[in-house]
Amino acid sequence: MPIVTVLQGPRDTELKRDLVARITDAFVDAYKIPADSVQVWIQETAPENWSVSGKLIADAK
Amino acid sequence: MPIVTVLQGPRDTELKRDLVARITDAFVDAYKIPADSVQVWIQETAPENWSVSGKLIADAK
Amino acid sequence: MPIVTVLQGPRDTELKRDLVARITDAFVDAYKIPADSVQVWIQETAPENWSVSGKLIADAK
Amino acid sequence: MPIVTVLQGPRDTELKRDLVARITDAFVDAYKIPADSVQVWIQETAPENWSVSGKLIADAK
Amino acid sequence: MPIVTVLQGPRDTELKRDLVARITDAFVDAYKIPADSVQVWIQETAPENWSVSGKLIADAK
Amino acid sequence: MPIVTVLQGPRDTELKRDLVARITDAFVDAYKIPADSVQVWIQETAPENWSVSGKLIADAK
Repeated sequence: MPIVTVLQGPRDTELKRDLVARITDAFVDAYKIPADSVQVWIQETAPENWSVSGKLIADAK
Repeated sequence: MPIVTVLQGPRDTELKRDLVARITDAFVDAYKIPADSVQVWIQETAPENWSVSGKLIADAK
Repeated sequence: MPIVTVLQGPRDTELKRDLVARITDAFVDAYKIPADSVQVWIQETAPENWSVSGKLIADAK
Repeated sequence: MPIVTVLQGPRDTELKRDLVARITDAFVDAYKIPADSVQVWIQETAPENWSVSGKLIADAK
Repeated sequence: MPIVTVLQGPRDTELKRDLVARITDAFVDAYKIPADSVQVWIQETAPENWSVSGKLIADAK
Repeated sequence: MPIVTVLQGPRDTELKRDLVARITDAFVDAYKIPADSVQVWIQETAPENWSVSGKLIADAK
C-alpha cells in the first residue's frame, strides 16, 4: 500500500488529475499491485515557500 | 521527541483538537515519555490534491 | 484515509506495536472513521542522524 | 522541479528501477516538464514499522 | 542533491528569504556541494493544525 | 519550533554534525528563535532508493 507524496508548485486540477492516474499506473505496472492500494498526496507549495540555489522561486520569476 | 505528521482532508478545529490530544496520549502511554516531547503537525490536503486508485478525491464525491 | 508518519529514535517492536494500535484508536475515537482507513509509518532515525539545539543526539548521550 | 517521496515496504532493486522510470515519465507526460527536473526518493519501511488497522504489517503476515 | 523540508508556522516572506539562503549556505559549507543542488520546501502550518503537549498552538496563544 | 527534514545520500557523521549545527544557526539568525526549538532529522537514502531523471543514483555511478 504505497503512499506517494509530491512536492510541487500550484498546477491546474486537470493536470493533477492526469498526473495521479499516471503515477498510480506506474505502481500497477512496475509492482503488479492493485490500483486501490496506491494513494497520492500532492503538497502544493507557493513560490514564496520554496527555493533552489538559496533563492525563493517567487524571486526568480 | 517524536514528531508526528498527519496527511488528511480538511476537518473542523474541534475534531483536530481532540485528535492531537489523543495522539499525544498514545505516545505518553505506549512509550512513557512526557507529553511536551510530542509534536503533531496536520497537513490538510484539499480533495483535488489527493487520490486513491488513481482518482482525485474531488472527482469521487 | 489519514496517513500518519512518526519520526523517532529506534524502539523495540513491542512498544511500536502498542503505539500504532493507540494512534489508530485516536483516529477512530476522534474522527469516527474505521480503523482500516488509518495507516501509520514509523521512520526510525539513528542518533547520528537527528539533532536538537544543533547537536546530534549521538553526541548528547 | 517536483520532488516525489514513496513510502513502501522493501522491494528488489529491479522493481524500483522500473518504478522510478515510470513515475518520472508520469510527470513528463502529464506536466510537460523535463525528466531531469523530477526526483524520486523511496523510503523503504520494514514491516515492524508500518501498520494498517492498528496492526503492524509484521504481525499480519 | 539534498532536499530540505521545513515544518513551521507562518512567517513573513522576508524572513523566509533569509532562511532559505542561510540553509543553502549550510549545505555548501558543510558538504562542499554547489548551491544549485539544494532545494528547500517550507510547509507552513496554521496554528490550528499543529500541537505541542497535545494542545493546538491556536489554543495556547 | 521548526522541524527540519533532510533527504540525502549517506554521509560521514562528522559532516552531518557540522551540517545540523549550521542549519540550526540558520534558524537562530534568520528567525531570532532559540536553538533548542530547532530539530533536524536526516533521512539518509541509499543510492538504489533515489532517482534523478528517472534513473537510480546507484545506476548513474
